[in-house]
Amino acid sequence: MTDRTETLLPNWLRRCAENRPDHLAVSCGSVRLSFAELDFQASRLARQLASIGVQEGSRVALLAANGLEFVACVHALTSLGAILVPLNIRLSREELRWQLSDIQAAFLLSDQRYAEVAAALHMALPGIQPGLLLSEAGEVRLQDAASLDVPLRTLIDLTATQAIIYTSGTTGQPKGVIITYGMQWWNALGSALNLGHRPDDCWLACMPLFHIGGLSILMRSVIYTISISLHERFDAVAVNRAIQEDNVSIISVVAVMLQRMLSALDASQNEQGYPATLRCVLLGGGPAPRPLLEDCARRGIPVVQTYGLTESCSQAVTLAPADALRKLGSAGRPLLPVQIRIMQDGRIAAANEAGVIYLKGPSITPGYANRPEATAKVMHEDWLSTGDMGYLDEDGYLYVLDRRTDLIISGGENVYPAEVESVLLAHPAVEEAGVCGREDSQWGQIPIAFVRPRHGCKLHVEELQVHAAQHLARYKQPRAIYLVEELPRNSSGKLLRRELPHLLKQLTLAQQGKS
Amino acid sequence: MTDRTETLLPNWLRRCAENRPDHLAVSCGSVRLSFAELDFQASRLARQLASIGVQEGSRVALLAANGLEFVACVHALTSLGAILVPLNIRLSREELRWQLSDIQAAFLLSDQRYAEVAAALHMALPGIQPGLLLSEAGEVRLQDAASLDVPLRTLIDLTATQAIIYTSGTTGQPKGVIITYGMQWWNALGSALNLGHRPDDCWLACMPLFHIGGLSILMRSVIYTISISLHERFDAVAVNRAIQEDNVSIISVVAVMLQRMLSALDASQNEQGYPATLRCVLLGGGPAPRPLLEDCARRGIPVVQTYGLTESCSQAVTLAPADALRKLGSAGRPLLPVQIRIMQDGRIAAANEAGVIYLKGPSITPGYANRPEATAKVMHEDWLSTGDMGYLDEDGYLYVLDRRTDLIISGGENVYPAEVESVLLAHPAVEEAGVCGREDSQWGQIPIAFVRPRHGCKLHVEELQVHAAQHLARYKQPRAIYLVEELPRNSSGKLLRRELPHLLKQLTLAQQGKS
Repeated sequence: MTDRTETLLPNWLRRCAENRPDHLAVSCGSVRLSFAELDFQASRLARQLASIGVQEGSRVALLAANGLEFVACVHALTSLGAILVPLNIRLSREELRWQLSDIQAAFLLSDQRYAEVAAALHMALPGIQPGLLLSEAGEVRLQDAASLDVPLRTLIDLTATQAIIYTSGTTGQPKGVIITYGMQWWNALGSALNLGHRPDDCWLACMPLFHIGGLSILMRSVIYTISISLHERFDAVAVNRAIQEDNVSIISVVAVMLQRMLSALDASQNEQGYPATLRCVLLGGGPAPRPLLEDCARRGIPVVQTYGLTESCSQAVTLAPADALRKLGSAGRPLLPVQIRIMQDGRIAAANEAGVIYLKGPSITPGYANRPEATAKVMHEDWLSTGDMGYLDEDGYLYVLDRRTDLIISGGENVYPAEVESVLLAHPAVEEAGVCGREDSQWGQIPIAFVRPRHGCKLHVEELQVHAAQHLARYKQPRAIYLVEELPRNSSGKLLRRELPHLLKQLTLAQQGKS
Repeated sequence: MTDRTETLLPNWLRRCAENRPDHLAVSCGSVRLSFAELDFQASRLARQLASIGVQEGSRVALLAANGLEFVACVHALTSLGAILVPLNIRLSREELRWQLSDIQAAFLLSDQRYAEVAAALHMALPGIQPGLLLSEAGEVRLQDAASLDVPLRTLIDLTATQAIIYTSGTTGQPKGVIITYGMQWWNALGSALNLGHRPDDCWLACMPLFHIGGLSILMRSVIYTISISLHERFDAVAVNRAIQEDNVSIISVVAVMLQRMLSALDASQNEQGYPATLRCVLLGGGPAPRPLLEDCARRGIPVVQTYGLTESCSQAVTLAPADALRKLGSAGRPLLPVQIRIMQDGRIAAANEAGVIYLKGPSITPGYANRPEATAKVMHEDWLSTGDMGYLDEDGYLYVLDRRTDLIISGGENVYPAEVESVLLAHPAVEEAGVCGREDSQWGQIPIAFVRPRHGCKLHVEELQVHAAQHLARYKQPRAIYLVEELPRNSSGKLLRRELPHLLKQLTLAQQGKS
């Protein structure tokens, strides 16, 4: 009996090109690339990237909107064994600069739209090699690049790192989550076993590819050999049109998007709704409002709710449409490769007992890049502490009570109060700051802030908003800032963020009392 | 970053019982068991088996026809971490006895139909603990057994051995192929990625469960959470009825079966043929006759040809219906986890150059039980030499030229000439023996033998046939034995089995000359 490591698989995109060369790989705007064409583009781009020095293990940051540049680049990096560090285009320049230097990126690639931001970042970090990705009529190339005839990888090692994706976590300190090829593989397989897999599926990607929810669609496409309908940005009318005309069978969305799609459907007075070809609406990014779920049930839209995080390579737990009514409010059951347990007071909680959600399995991250302490803090004997609270009912269905205690989910983007607070606290006139979410009909939640000015300092709310805008991505900036005399804290002085909404009520009442 | 072995998955059947408790797991005759019921039966049987001493690592031989006893037993052994050794019910008692002692089986379980054979084997091998599996009205139990409340395994270790299945190979010496859970898992996933996976699939199993082709269907059922329509034996009319009435979507067959199904369809004057619910006819067990493929194409039957062997956990290479005409005669492309190469003169062959087919990947066996030399002979740096000849065309499609040089495939069963020859040579009056296949309209091929009597001995063909019947399974026994004065051999004395058919022609001509 031989001893083996079972971790090598044939290069996914290459295999698609061999098995279904003429099958549609990706449509984006008016461009349609077959697998053979995409493989050709990715291989050529890989050789161009090699000519500027990208090689095995290189950390290559990518600042780009959804587009063919992004898709070709992801696969090109796989062919070179380089590591993708996708950057959130919504971040402020300061946040981007911090991430680039934190991850010690050797390269910063951008598309044309973000060329200016990339140039500014390059000014600040001259040690990072820049590169501009161009896309014209379905041809992706690296500007001014030669081509180096390096051998491209025909095998994928499942233990190798595919990407490092930043997430902030409870501490407000962003950390790079290591995403291995194995995580992508096991997640894709777990998802296929759950949702079914049809060789003629077409997955619509309108979520950002720099988040795990979008990036994992790219990986599934080449693992399943199926088509992607890629949208440069979310436009409800365009998405509805694609569903109705392009045989889209699966779409990943967050609640805000789905709501807008339904509104657009109503506005278009389309009586028929979605065709039967749409077999799965994968709804992630936080709890879904019940009226939305009921509306979808009425319209016969097959919504599959999911719970997942970057650390679990997107979906980890899903609720099948058949269970939607029977288990209303539940996030469902774990995908096959995923084990789940609830921990309370250092022991495994009983059924229906709340505690912290732990996940384990080959689709869960091995940890954070360059952060052994942060990794040790969340990994306990291969179990990942998500920080989220929840319970399992007697049938093993997960109910998520609270995302990471005080996580704010705004339009599907995670906003970590501690991160926003640390920016506010950096302002010289701020003594204390507390951030929480406020319900919002459009975004689900929006961040708001409570600030206690430093004694003797004069603090204008507008000035503080300008300060926040300089340091934070737009979706993280507090939509309202309230000046208060005291923040709710427990006896040991810890900020009680859950009490902040009450503070808002008091302020409103006080306001009403005044008027 | 933590170091991990990514090999633990939740117990597959248990998970099915949790996720889809009421979904049909298996129908067999008039009995229908849901996943919750099957899990209950398997768990109870596991505790009964534990009471007679079955435990982790126990090698448990099973002599049973297709039935609920077989299904429950397979899953019960998984719950105990014991190893299944399924016995071919068509083997002679001598062959069975040899296998049992070769594998050092600790237990021999049988169903009622094979109780007598099992009792005789127990007489010969008193050290093996017997056990009789009974099935009444969907209840499976171990006769006269108590129940031991042992903990049942909630996790499956993919590196653990699930089964050991005997195959003869070119040498005529049967060897036990190690089948791990990982092989089953990767094979099931590779198959799902290739054929698609639908949660409402129903897979019809009419192939013997003691072969990898049948056993792997049982595993896929619990990996995919889909139903099985289990047939105790192949009956073309019953299989056709199941396809027409029971929503069967996938069926695994060999060419002989498919031919009979089509004949039965014609005889029943069913104009409609098979319903659209039948989405895949997986055709394995040797090359398919072209007229059969053309007939299926005319009828719109979606035939997926496959090439595989026990060592590759069934399917390794398949040809999609879309490629059936474009690549006529090809076995197709490897499943995703499988790598393939053709070796010739110690180097990788060029496109269209013939050589020995090698396979590699996590669905390929780590080797043969207790046979380090035999393992070393076929495993070369994790590549398995199949012994089969073939070539890859310029698109990477496999064409199998010859199954293991001289393998005879009779009704889907492999007959190894060397094994039959060694039995014939054991007869005192036989000096030389050569066995080959003859084309047969019903079985595809049947074995025939050429024998040179020992000098001065009188040899009756009938006597030799009785001798063969005593030592060989029926399907291996030569249907005709010809006495000859010389066998074709090369200069170094090696038997040229490929020349044997010419000998038959000469004999026939000589016969015609005489008459």
